[in-house]
Parts: sequence; structure tokens; C-alpha cells
Amino acid sequence: MDLRLYAVTDRSYLDGIDLIDAVEQAVRGGITIIQLREKEISSREFYELALRVKKVTRRKNIPLIINDRVDIALAVDADGVHIGQEDLPAEVVRRLIGPGKILGVSAGTVEEAIKAQKDGADYLGVGAAYPTPTKPESCAIGIEGIKKIKEAIGIPVVAIGGITRENAYEVMLKTGVDGISSVSAVFAGDVEENSRQLLESINKAIADRS
Amino acid sequence: MDLRLYAVTDRSYLDGIDLIDAVEQAVRGGITIIQLREKEISSREFYELALRVKKVTRRKNIPLIINDRVDIALAVDADGVHIGQEDLPAEVVRRLIGPGKILGVSAGTVEEAIKAQKDGADYLGVGAAYPTPTKPESCAIGIEGIKKIKEAIGIPVVAIGGITRENAYEVMLKTGVDGISSVSAVFAGDVEENSRQLLESINKAIADRS
Repeated sequence: MDLRLYAVTDRSYLDGIDLIDAVEQAVRGGITIIQLREKEISSREFYELALRVKKVTRRKNIPLIINDRVDIALAVDADGVHIGQEDLPAEVVRRLIGPGKILGVSAGTVEEAIKAQKDGADYLGVGAAYPTPTKPESCAIGIEGIKKIKEAIGIPVVAIGGITRENAYEVMLKTGVDGISSVSAVFAGDVEENSRQLLESINKAIADRS
Repeated sequence: MDLRLYAVTDRSYLDGIDLIDAVEQAVRGGITIIQLREKEISSREFYELALRVKKVTRRKNIPLIINDRVDIALAVDADGVHIGQEDLPAEVVRRLIGPGKILGVSAGTVEEAIKAQKDGADYLGVGAAYPTPTKPESCAIGIEGIKKIKEAIGIPVVAIGGITRENAYEVMLKTGVDGISSVSAVFAGDVEENSRQLLESINKAIADRS
């Protein structure tokens, strides 16, 4: 599981591009894993979209993770599920998906991180690194907060929240995380170029860390 | 599976009563099966609510059916899942829930009904019997439409859509269905008394049919 550049979809950033086209561009640009997040569509639409995305990701062996909806993940035989603190409990999801699928959990505190690890998470999404429109100042734990969680647990961590082309290098360098996750830094604007530049920054940070 | 009085929850009808209290009242009044339908809450809230409802329904051996969300049904070990035409395909749901759980499918035409039966449905919700605020005139197939579907298939049918205390007897008598399903006729007003009167009308129609 290569978590270096973890793209999360959000059609509101796509500015008219088809989601499948955007995913193809992101894959060409070098994303290493992708999460499909859909909150506003029917189960049938989510299912059909996930099947179409899977055709793209399977060709390049990019793991496809489904946000929240364990049933959609099982229905399309996705590679895993990502859950937040408002979704099904991690230990229940692990029971439903079995040991072979990837389970990711969002965590904002050391306590949540330790619990998620204990409950069967394979990796954590930790943040917010910086305030964002959807996660205000109060949710931002910063570089220090992410570093603290990364040091407290044994499973891989991706940093989330407010990460951009400009700060991706610093986040990777200073927190020691295994990758960065973003919606807008990948999908707003030129998706392929965004992905390429992000991966370059991430790879440089990994090289500079060691 | 006793489908005579199939209650579907909708908290917008509850007028301040706690959903669990309302379910307890409905069970005392004689509902024979219940479907938990939640579209606006988080997966965690749905899961926790379903666990609480199950405690009530299990005591009286009332089957608990979850609307749409196969993952919630599996997570709480509910008795089954009910899906509409905008949810996961029936054959996919049957694969996910296995042969032991109840699968209900909404159908508005003979074609949809035959397909659902073929795809593994255990029963159908067929309607709308009458126009409702959420299902306008164009969706109402009436007594004749429901009767036609009931005669075309071999699995049990519950009539849905616009059914009230006043018309429940007629719907049962004239369509030959196995039960009636309603949100408002059960949950608006005195839930226990609603359920008692509905069941009485249904039982009278079944007696008068034979």
C-alpha cells in the first residue's frame, strides 16, 4: 500500500470535467491511491460510479477506497473503506469487510488514533494540517499535532486538511507521515499537472528526510 | 414473515415523540414488521438507532428491515433490507446479505416486479396506491395497478403509498395483497391506536376475502 499521494474525489472541484476523466488524469499524474467520496447521490449512482472508477484504477493497480459506505465497497469489490468518526465504528467495519481489505480511519487526536489502530485500521488520515473552509481553525491540529499522532502509533499515516502544492513538502518533511491526502490540491485546475508536482514534492521530502 | 401491517419509520411524522417510543407503541398496537428508513443522519447515528430499535423489535419477534443501507443492516444483524429502484441492484444486495436475510424491493410496474422476483426479492412493496405529497398522481398506479402486479408474480406483496385507516380495508380486499405498508397511517398521531385500527381493518379484509 503506497500512501504517498492519496487523492480524494469531490465533484464540486471538477469545474465541469467528468469525474472519470479527472481520475484518469490524476492516475497519469502519479497518485498512488484514491478515495471515492460521494454524499449527495443515490446508492445506485454511487455503485455505478464506483464500478467505472474501478476500471480506471485497476488498470494501474491504484487501490480504490470507498468513503463511509461499506455496502458500496463490498458491492464493487473495492480495495478498502475509509471511515470518519461519524461513520460505522472501525471494529464493525473490519468485521464486515474481512481481513483482506484496507481500512482507513480519520483521526484528529492521539486518543482517536490509538483507538482506531486497536480497532483494526490499516492506516490513518490525520489532520486537519491547516484550517480549510470545511474544517475551521478549531479542527486544525497543525504540523505539531500530526507529528505527535504519527509518533504515537505504528500504522501508516496520511496528513489531511488544507494541504497544497506549496506546503506538501513541509508537511511531509516535518511530520514524518507516509503521504499526504487532498481533494483540491489534486482536483482543482490541471489535475495531471497538480498530481505530478505534488508527487515530486513528496518524493523530495522523503529523500531529504533520510 | 407476516407482512400484514408493515410500518415504515419517518421521524418527520413523530411530532416530538422519540422514535424508540413510537416503535414501542406501534409494536404494542400490532404492527407485524418494521422498516427503518433514515436519509438525513450519519452512518454512526443510523447504526446506533438501528441497534436501539432492534432491542424493541427482537423482544416481540417483529422483523427489522433496513431501508437502502445494506452495510447498516449487516452491522446490526437486522432481519433484512428494503431497496428501491435508486438503491443497489437487487441481485447485488442478495449476494451481500446471503440467502438467510429478507430482501424487499419497491416496484411500480409489472416489469420491475418480475425483475425483482427474478433477482431474489422475498417480497415487493408495490404502489403508490394513491397519490401522496412525495409520490404525485403520475406515480399512483391505484388498486388496479397493484392487483395486476400481485397477479403477475408469486412472492408476497405489500401495497404502499397513500394508505390510510379509511382505505386500508378496500386496498386489501380489492388487490389481494399480503399486507399494507405506511408511514403516516401508523406514525402520525396516536401510534398504538393507529396500528390497532389498521390491523383490525386488514384482518377483516382478509376474512372477507376468503
